[in-house]
Amino acid sequence: MAFSPDCPLCVSDHAPLLWQDDKLRIIRVDDPRHPGYVRVIWQRHVAEMTDIDPMDRLHLMRTVFQVERLQRALLRPDKINLASLGNQVPHLHWHLIPRWRGDPCFPDAIWAPPRHDAVQADAWAEACGTLAPQVEHLHQILKTRGPAADVPVPDGAQDAPGA
Amino acid sequence: MAFSPDCPLCVSDHAPLLWQDDKLRIIRVDDPRHPGYVRVIWQRHVAEMTDIDPMDRLHLMRTVFQVERLQRALLRPDKINLASLGNQVPHLHWHLIPRWRGDPCFPDAIWAPPRHDAVQADAWAEACGTLAPQVEHLHQILKTRGPAADVPVPDGAQDAPGA
Repeated sequence: MAFSPDCPLCVSDHAPLLWQDDKLRIIRVDDPRHPGYVRVIWQRHVAEMTDIDPMDRLHLMRTVFQVERLQRALLRPDKINLASLGNQVPHLHWHLIPRWRGDPCFPDAIWAPPRHDAVQADAWAEACGTLAPQVEHLHQILKTRGPAADVPVPDGAQDAPGA
Repeated sequence: MAFSPDCPLCVSDHAPLLWQDDKLRIIRVDDPRHPGYVRVIWQRHVAEMTDIDPMDRLHLMRTVFQVERLQRALLRPDKINLASLGNQVPHLHWHLIPRWRGDPCFPDAIWAPPRHDAVQADAWAEACGTLAPQVEHLHQILKTRGPAADVPVPDGAQDAPGA
């Protein structure tokens, strides 16, 4: 099915778009607890990775890893979390979530209950403020140059733009 | 780094192995709440997808999608959840989790608090019992024929073994 009128990812045009092509789009996720959180959404209404053909899978995953590379290069998180869940909205999309040791749920998944007390929550809010310019830089690069933008590769990471 | 003596995924040989090659291994996850849950673990100690080279990424994701295809064909879940987190064990691995509308956390991620009351928990335990032969079949196929095994493709899914 190409379009489902009941699906929020098919009908919404309010998501803050960073980049798109005819197959997929990259949107900003404005979650104040998780700076640099991005979603990559397949344009067509399908539920699973194995619902799209192998070349499309390759294109989608290549884009996911290009964005991961930009998140690592620009935000230097402690870890990247990647997830395709879709239990609530079964329209194929990937969550790309930079994680830090001080973030509310670390080292659990972001869907687990937060571990923060009030002091830790304040410290994390301050850290998020410090990260804001880098997050804005990530958004600007995606908007103006796309996920294949060539930026310096973090230590140990394999070059991804051409991959 | 190829091996880290402090990493449980580097040193453990107790995980119930289903299949492996020189690059990755597929293990059974014996979580009674989540039948058919499987992990695909990179053999080398690296943290992120962008720490391995593009051909290795392709091989790892192809294997993940082959296993997804087998899970869908043999277990007919309502959804597949894929995730690479690694916050607790930063050694590259993928969670492949078949999900059903009646499972404890649905439609949340499995890392969220369960929603079940006692009646729902009993019903789910019974459903898991019914699924047990299909789960055993999945494990047997992975052990004897590997992730590229040719089994009938579920409706709407794209063929994956050669992809």
